[in-house]
Amino acid sequence: MDHRIAEHAEVLVDWSARIDSGDNVVVSVDAGAHPLGVAVAGAIGARGGNLVTTSGSDEITRAYLHAHPGDFEQDPAHELGLYEEADAVLLLRGTRNTSTMGDVPGSVTAAYRRTRQGIADARLATDWVATVHPTRALAQQADMAIEAYRDFVYGAILRDWEALAGEMAQLKARLDAGSTVRIDAPGTEITLSIEDRVAVNSAASVDFDSHNLPSGEVFTAPAGATGEMTFDLPMTIDGRQVRDVRLVFENGVVVDHEADRNESVLSDILETDDGARRVGELGFGMNRNIDRITNNILFDEKMGDTIHLAVGRPYAACFSDGTPSHDSAVHVDLIADVREESRVWIDEELVQQNGRFAWEEGFEGP
Amino acid sequence: MDHRIAEHAEVLVDWSARIDSGDNVVVSVDAGAHPLGVAVAGAIGARGGNLVTTSGSDEITRAYLHAHPGDFEQDPAHELGLYEEADAVLLLRGTRNTSTMGDVPGSVTAAYRRTRQGIADARLATDWVATVHPTRALAQQADMAIEAYRDFVYGAILRDWEALAGEMAQLKARLDAGSTVRIDAPGTEITLSIEDRVAVNSAASVDFDSHNLPSGEVFTAPAGATGEMTFDLPMTIDGRQVRDVRLVFENGVVVDHEADRNESVLSDILETDDGARRVGELGFGMNRNIDRITNNILFDEKMGDTIHLAVGRPYAACFSDGTPSHDSAVHVDLIADVREESRVWIDEELVQQNGRFAWEEGFEGP
Repeated sequence: MDHRIAEHAEVLVDWSARIDSGDNVVVSVDAGAHPLGVAVAGAIGARGGNLVTTSGSDEITRAYLHAHPGDFEQDPAHELGLYEEADAVLLLRGTRNTSTMGDVPGSVTAAYRRTRQGIADARLATDWVATVHPTRALAQQADMAIEAYRDFVYGAILRDWEALAGEMAQLKARLDAGSTVRIDAPGTEITLSIEDRVAVNSAASVDFDSHNLPSGEVFTAPAGATGEMTFDLPMTIDGRQVRDVRLVFENGVVVDHEADRNESVLSDILETDDGARRVGELGFGMNRNIDRITNNILFDEKMGDTIHLAVGRPYAACFSDGTPSHDSAVHVDLIADVREESRVWIDEELVQQNGRFAWEEGFEGP
Repeated sequence: MDHRIAEHAEVLVDWSARIDSGDNVVVSVDAGAHPLGVAVAGAIGARGGNLVTTSGSDEITRAYLHAHPGDFEQDPAHELGLYEEADAVLLLRGTRNTSTMGDVPGSVTAAYRRTRQGIADARLATDWVATVHPTRALAQQADMAIEAYRDFVYGAILRDWEALAGEMAQLKARLDAGSTVRIDAPGTEITLSIEDRVAVNSAASVDFDSHNLPSGEVFTAPAGATGEMTFDLPMTIDGRQVRDVRLVFENGVVVDHEADRNESVLSDILETDDGARRVGELGFGMNRNIDRITNNILFDEKMGDTIHLAVGRPYAACFSDGTPSHDSAVHVDLIADVREESRVWIDEELVQQNGRFAWEEGFEGP
């Protein structure tokens, strides 16, 4: 076995999910993630956790959804019981074919999700963490060979998270203290209000309100946005690639948009509901071991030297009273590379130039 | 996909488990049984059942048990909640290596099972069914090529169960009405008391108190046994093959035993507890599509033209008041081929000769 699989399991169980003796743990294992499932079971056993392993096979889900007449029952009691009594839920993603769910109508998936809101809420109330086991299908989606993709995935995951959390804390402190963020780059001139908002230091651990491994981003929920921003990194939304998106904001709302490819996907997203046109997140990707787009949002939004905005639903953790300013059925991230000709100010202070932060070596002042 | 996988799923969901709309179903999928898991998910979806899929991977279980310090918690609430709220549990067996659990100490497995008794009871209270998906590992254990093994497995499973249930009902009626069974064959001369006992027509459906697919046996719990019986078919017990077992009974208790190979395995079984020396079951294998020993008890004990006795725990369903006559931690079946020089009487009636029953074509009277 690749020794990195065991190391991944250790990071997941200890740093990310903080599993203790007696914890009731549910581990969801995708069909391609079995080797990681074995390692995680060993790590949970060693800590004295109580293990239930569920199958995360998308082929099984597809077969079920295709066949079901559609009158899904609300929160079936056996599944609800499992998650209501769980302390932690670990999602080991690793599909063997990223196109499996492609022919399930979105309306069916949406109906299924709606009837499982209580189960989803119960799961989100646990110390849940989502991670990825490198499969050939994900390597293909990333346009990489499996060996290279494994190096990429473990590079992003097997980090000194404590040290990275310390670096990211510096940005969080400035965002928490600041009132406005201004970004100036080719195609971008935008000002975002962040007064009274709380930034999340997303350091891949439930102790940091962070539920993804890898993570490595600092994000907040802007109160408003005015200006325009260009997102030059490609994003795959609902299976279709959107490129070179430009959004124009007035008072925190998208008033104009365009994209060089699949613009209609973006238009559909923005028309989902009222909240879908509002800015939901401003995030700084700070995991520099993620140095390319791999068409997997779990990695893409954490890519080093990037900034992303999301339209749609903001995260409750960013509001000091825990109450989000608006709701939406969507949360879609769009990402800009900031390695060149880019500057970011918090209030009057230049905090980032060409990807380098003010407290880093190599930072060049204004 | 082999069309027989879909047919297997239909038989399992409709005939065996009787899944209805709104049923809460747990499907446990072994690592090698994924194709059957997909088909079963489709069949459950089509009937409007509510699906939770768990992983039955023995590699995951092994890793967990090896690592755990051993102080297992009693019936963890998340797993208990899942099974207490389940209406049906389908176990899709299909290991990729029958030796996986071989290096887990029996004491660890036993300790784990003891602390999960409440969970096991909750699962046994559902409409549970165990079945097998043909894997290369199981084919190897059966000493067959995978293609031949698939033919064997589906031959045993894809039957006209209603017709077979009708045939088996004739034996059940005679056993229920009878007081004694006498078996006479080379190395066998035994009389078993079955007064007041209820025979189970094990027709692979929960509606027949039958929880295995395939099934195809009629069994009861003898009150007593006197004489001796020779079991000429090999049995794999705890991973070791036992051959040509001979048991001598007095008043329902084993007073002497021998075996041509691994006799100590048999001795250990009989010394487990007081109940382990008592006769727990008398069964007639009636699934003639099972025509050989494949070292898998789910199939072996249903082999056509065989008779088996078990030592140890009897099934509660065989007692008119539901209370077994004795208990034991073990239930071990031993099987005799009755195709030649064998005769079985119930009371004074010859009901089977050389494997043929009295109501069948080809039966030759005394």
